[in-house]
Amino acid sequence: MSDHVEAPVTPVEAYEPPYYVAVFTTVRTEDQSDYSETNARMEELVKDIPGYLGMDHAQTPGGLGITVSYFRDADGLEEWRTHPEHRAAQQRGRAQWYERYTLHVAKVEHSSTFEKA
Amino acid sequence: MSDHVEAPVTPVEAYEPPYYVAVFTTVRTEDQSDYSETNARMEELVKDIPGYLGMDHAQTPGGLGITVSYFRDADGLEEWRTHPEHRAAQQRGRAQWYERYTLHVAKVEHSSTFEKA
Repeated sequence: MSDHVEAPVTPVEAYEPPYYVAVFTTVRTEDQSDYSETNARMEELVKDIPGYLGMDHAQTPGGLGITVSYFRDADGLEEWRTHPEHRAAQQRGRAQWYERYTLHVAKVEHSSTFEKA
Repeated sequence: MSDHVEAPVTPVEAYEPPYYVAVFTTVRTEDQSDYSETNARMEELVKDIPGYLGMDHAQTPGGLGITVSYFRDADGLEEWRTHPEHRAAQQRGRAQWYERYTLHVAKVEHSSTFEKA
């Protein structure tokens, strides 16, 4: 994912619960070679997972990164977690890109949205 | 919250489930006057809520902001949501700081963490 943002950003909408979120918080290492390419590939691949609803990403320069993935059910999330190419990317992430990360998988009970008139 | 990061960032840890996350995604307006002060005040206030576990924040410059708050149970989250001073800040957010936002409240079922050796 590029840090250079030009298009207006649209966060993933408030779907009707229940659905699932995977909150992935990361602290990066200095070696980010091939990260962008792999990330772009993952963003393509995940679209084929049944029940995939979308993804939000924010990255404070030099700080925390947060990626939130949204799925209709736990099965879709599990299919994505264990996808062979995604597995390989996760392994490389631990070896190279991430100083640390945390994953919180949760079932959404309430959601709401606001848009300026 | 300042955009100028100096201290090493430490994301909120993987607590033992169940616990709750509130995923708050935002697109800001151009008028961010008083935002930092209010945000700092909220970060102080929330620490007094029973069951508050922590908060992660990331902001892509000119792009999406994501704040994830963690609470031990739904009661703590509800107490925070309805706190009078927080309510006032929410109202001002809709009037001034946010072009749009979405909130997803979810119960964590699994969590994991990784730290480079």
